[in-house]
Amino acid sequence: MGSSTDQSGLVDGKSSVTRLVIGCADRRGVIAAVTAAIADAGGNVLDADQHADPQTGQFSMRLAFEGLEDRGGLESVLDGMNLQYRIRDASPWARVAVLCSKQTHCVADLLWRVTNGELAATVTRVISNHEDARSIAETFGFGYEVLPVTKETKAQQEAEVIRLLEEDGVELVVLARYMQVLSPGFVEKYAGRIINIHHSFLPAFAGARPYHRAFERGVKLIGATAHYVTADLDEGPIIAQRTADVSHRDTVEDMVRKGRDLERVVLAEAVRMHLEDRVLIDGARTVVFE
Amino acid sequence: MGSSTDQSGLVDGKSSVTRLVIGCADRRGVIAAVTAAIADAGGNVLDADQHADPQTGQFSMRLAFEGLEDRGGLESVLDGMNLQYRIRDASPWARVAVLCSKQTHCVADLLWRVTNGELAATVTRVISNHEDARSIAETFGFGYEVLPVTKETKAQQEAEVIRLLEEDGVELVVLARYMQVLSPGFVEKYAGRIINIHHSFLPAFAGARPYHRAFERGVKLIGATAHYVTADLDEGPIIAQRTADVSHRDTVEDMVRKGRDLERVVLAEAVRMHLEDRVLIDGARTVVFE
Amino acid sequence: MGSSTDQSGLVDGKSSVTRLVIGCADRRGVIAAVTAAIADAGGNVLDADQHADPQTGQFSMRLAFEGLEDRGGLESVLDGMNLQYRIRDASPWARVAVLCSKQTHCVADLLWRVTNGELAATVTRVISNHEDARSIAETFGFGYEVLPVTKETKAQQEAEVIRLLEEDGVELVVLARYMQVLSPGFVEKYAGRIINIHHSFLPAFAGARPYHRAFERGVKLIGATAHYVTADLDEGPIIAQRTADVSHRDTVEDMVRKGRDLERVVLAEAVRMHLEDRVLIDGARTVVFE
Amino acid sequence: MGSSTDQSGLVDGKSSVTRLVIGCADRRGVIAAVTAAIADAGGNVLDADQHADPQTGQFSMRLAFEGLEDRGGLESVLDGMNLQYRIRDASPWARVAVLCSKQTHCVADLLWRVTNGELAATVTRVISNHEDARSIAETFGFGYEVLPVTKETKAQQEAEVIRLLEEDGVELVVLARYMQVLSPGFVEKYAGRIINIHHSFLPAFAGARPYHRAFERGVKLIGATAHYVTADLDEGPIIAQRTADVSHRDTVEDMVRKGRDLERVVLAEAVRMHLEDRVLIDGARTVVFE
Repeated sequence: MGSSTDQSGLVDGKSSVTRLVIGCADRRGVIAAVTAAIADAGGNVLDADQHADPQTGQFSMRLAFEGLEDRGGLESVLDGMNLQYRIRDASPWARVAVLCSKQTHCVADLLWRVTNGELAATVTRVISNHEDARSIAETFGFGYEVLPVTKETKAQQEAEVIRLLEEDGVELVVLARYMQVLSPGFVEKYAGRIINIHHSFLPAFAGARPYHRAFERGVKLIGATAHYVTADLDEGPIIAQRTADVSHRDTVEDMVRKGRDLERVVLAEAVRMHLEDRVLIDGARTVVFE
Repeated sequence: MGSSTDQSGLVDGKSSVTRLVIGCADRRGVIAAVTAAIADAGGNVLDADQHADPQTGQFSMRLAFEGLEDRGGLESVLDGMNLQYRIRDASPWARVAVLCSKQTHCVADLLWRVTNGELAATVTRVISNHEDARSIAETFGFGYEVLPVTKETKAQQEAEVIRLLEEDGVELVVLARYMQVLSPGFVEKYAGRIINIHHSFLPAFAGARPYHRAFERGVKLIGATAHYVTADLDEGPIIAQRTADVSHRDTVEDMVRKGRDLERVVLAEAVRMHLEDRVLIDGARTVVFE
Repeated sequence: MGSSTDQSGLVDGKSSVTRLVIGCADRRGVIAAVTAAIADAGGNVLDADQHADPQTGQFSMRLAFEGLEDRGGLESVLDGMNLQYRIRDASPWARVAVLCSKQTHCVADLLWRVTNGELAATVTRVISNHEDARSIAETFGFGYEVLPVTKETKAQQEAEVIRLLEEDGVELVVLARYMQVLSPGFVEKYAGRIINIHHSFLPAFAGARPYHRAFERGVKLIGATAHYVTADLDEGPIIAQRTADVSHRDTVEDMVRKGRDLERVVLAEAVRMHLEDRVLIDGARTVVFE
Repeated sequence: MGSSTDQSGLVDGKSSVTRLVIGCADRRGVIAAVTAAIADAGGNVLDADQHADPQTGQFSMRLAFEGLEDRGGLESVLDGMNLQYRIRDASPWARVAVLCSKQTHCVADLLWRVTNGELAATVTRVISNHEDARSIAETFGFGYEVLPVTKETKAQQEAEVIRLLEEDGVELVVLARYMQVLSPGFVEKYAGRIINIHHSFLPAFAGARPYHRAFERGVKLIGATAHYVTADLDEGPIIAQRTADVSHRDTVEDMVRKGRDLERVVLAEAVRMHLEDRVLIDGARTVVFE
């Protein structure tokens, strides 16, 4: 039921790294004040990204630093600055649950990446409404829980999913082609912490059967979109998108096949960005510091 | 008012080339029968493309051949085969009108390509409802006609546009960011012979202000789509599409700027494919033989 | 030791398909003669691609057809036409050996694709000089043979590899990041039937440690190249290539990570094209009919 | 001989912007110290980018800020910090000379972008060894100087080019397919201020006739690379690169045509990045803050 991955928090030899993300209305002197506070608290900045949006007036910043000694002192300064912030240590890794259905390409890919150290995640468990991904999950040493769902049992099944997530202390839920719509309550409980992969370049072909509709429309591109889940289906803030060329020679099946390669790469990219605290949500949009 | 381009029809040294495009319900022996008929008529096939669509059952073929001696004989055979076909000589080049409005990037790009021999077109005239592209058109030696349009004069202006197209013997109308919706009558008259560039990856952001809506939706890609114009705005068969990455750092203006580079390349690509008889319309979709 | 994949040869419901590939100096009437011969032998052409290279004068054609009744008759006609051809049934699937070393991303990806029906291959066995990919191979139900190699035992080890390939009746050898240079004798024996993935956009960074050299040179792209293996290292005919953007933020490790995503997609693409008889070698170049 | 572009320095309404770029060995507290100094001098940071290279230990930073009041004070602080820096006002725009030869696609594209406000440059003059681009340059209102060059007159011609650059106060020299190799003296004089476009994905196909060699090698990609010019031909630090797919159907002429679309976009991108002080040279590599 646990993960076989290394939980030491040492990724690429970067030990004891702390990350701070900040959002506020743009105003003078924020960068100077925050970086000074970090230096005062013993921290040495390794990486800094900042963005002031000219349209929305929102200021976003991400700082990664090492050597923090006086966390309380830093938080005191931040608390006095009238801004929103989140401070997190890079170690231990975030606890992540993967939800999937019958298709296995995304879940297999994620688990392979976690096992090979590409994603700084501790996968707590794979949860599915079908048996299809069990052998893959168990091969990689992860627990696999099947919670079938019907129209009648949907509420009950979802309650059980949430119970498992809470039991496991899950910080991020990844929908790796989990073909169930989550209830508003679930979404709200994990707001900003559920990532879904949709198999089209949103906002085109939101909803069901995007490849079939892409074929019928005769598009010359297919795409995949990773986004945070909100109460509005396929309307959440987009984290990553990618397209690939198709032609008249591609059948729906070819599109599905090509799409699998897009989906798994785009989902993995979005999860990696989230895990490294590189994604900030700003209304319907995201800031992704690369 | 004419074009300064070479009208000899000799493109890349391929002289006396004839092109045949065919569409029919898929059935046995079409390729053999048609290629035999071409050989009987003295033709030597240079390039052949064929596509049998497993979903729609439509068969499409394009043949380019040289040395045709007995055109009448070939057409007799084709007439007896119960299929739709179009036969055209590569020379002389097709007569093309370019329509534009205030933005000049697409029209400037097309005229530059024609002048430099990239597109086998004889541009008859540039028509616009604004003066903006006049100096560019005239620099390249093309005629420029301004036909302003208001809500009241729309029908009359369109009639005048059609009169010019007929006078010039235009075979293809290119809407190079011409921001007017054509009437159903115009569209029907030039069915399959009007190419438009839309500044989004359709079907997303059809209609007005696609970059603004892309910004608001927070997409991580922008796109451009070249398509045949039909009575339904932005719903015609797609010929070419392309996307480019954007990030939170891109303002609407950045998207517009990046989009210009996409639009002109995608439009030129679609026009080139059409001029070389590489595009076949199959309902809402196209076959593009590259 | 065998494969668990479906060996019926029915891919996407296309049963009893035969493929013919042809190469010869370009001359009149080849398409007509060959398609007529196929029709005479009872075949119905499903897909035809043809290419006459204006630079080299080489003519290449690929035909896929169903319903062949008189194979002997067709071959007689072809034998009399003074051209090179290869005729193969789509079923049974080609027998494929995968060779790998310590890195598992390419072999894992190929086996996943075979298992999920994406590649029409019967994997006979995975052969490696290391144990690293054993659990993955065995999870997917494939045999795994470790043949360690040192400078002293290289000739002997290679002889043993060849013995296994012959025993298994292997038609295609895929080097999925197999970090050993094959001897000229091995290469000659399987000429045109060994596909390698190189982790750079060839001809740049041929040889060892391409990502390190890419980093040092400060390129803004990395790439992967799948090619047939010839006696000259990394000089064989290229089947597929792809690049991805990198920036100053990417360390060598990031390039390696991003490169893995390129390598597995490019290798799988090349193998798929080969298995469907879509690749023809023309000297140092390939024709790839898509 | 001057430029018709707006020289007010107001780009996108961002007036009175100052940019500071810094390079030094990575050490604690630089970001905090510099941002504090900017705030003390009245500046409000609009955009900040920073990069600490784990391989080379080099720290790079770019800051854009408005409202600077005490420039002398800021420079005093920076002078005392043992680092390399460059401080520049966004206005007036940089003075840029464009050098070209017979091919016009890059020079036409650059002049079109400058005229349309895409590039914050004042083009002082176009200099060429041929007449081909004269009409384009003059159409856009720029001066055009032809300085023919032969083996015998090369040194003398180059001296005349330099004289014009000095007379015009040129800060950036753009080689828009200028097919002459500059002497070491010229390169040294404008070190880090000459941008060239090479028509291949370097380091592949450095030197002459890259498309011909790409065709012969049978690559499936072509590319373009913009880089700073150094004494070693095609070896300078790369600013931007891009590739496009090609297939067996593409002749050398097709590659040249597709390549033109790459070259002009890649060159314009590199020039734009340089003009906005986004490019820092770090040995053989560049940091490009986007």
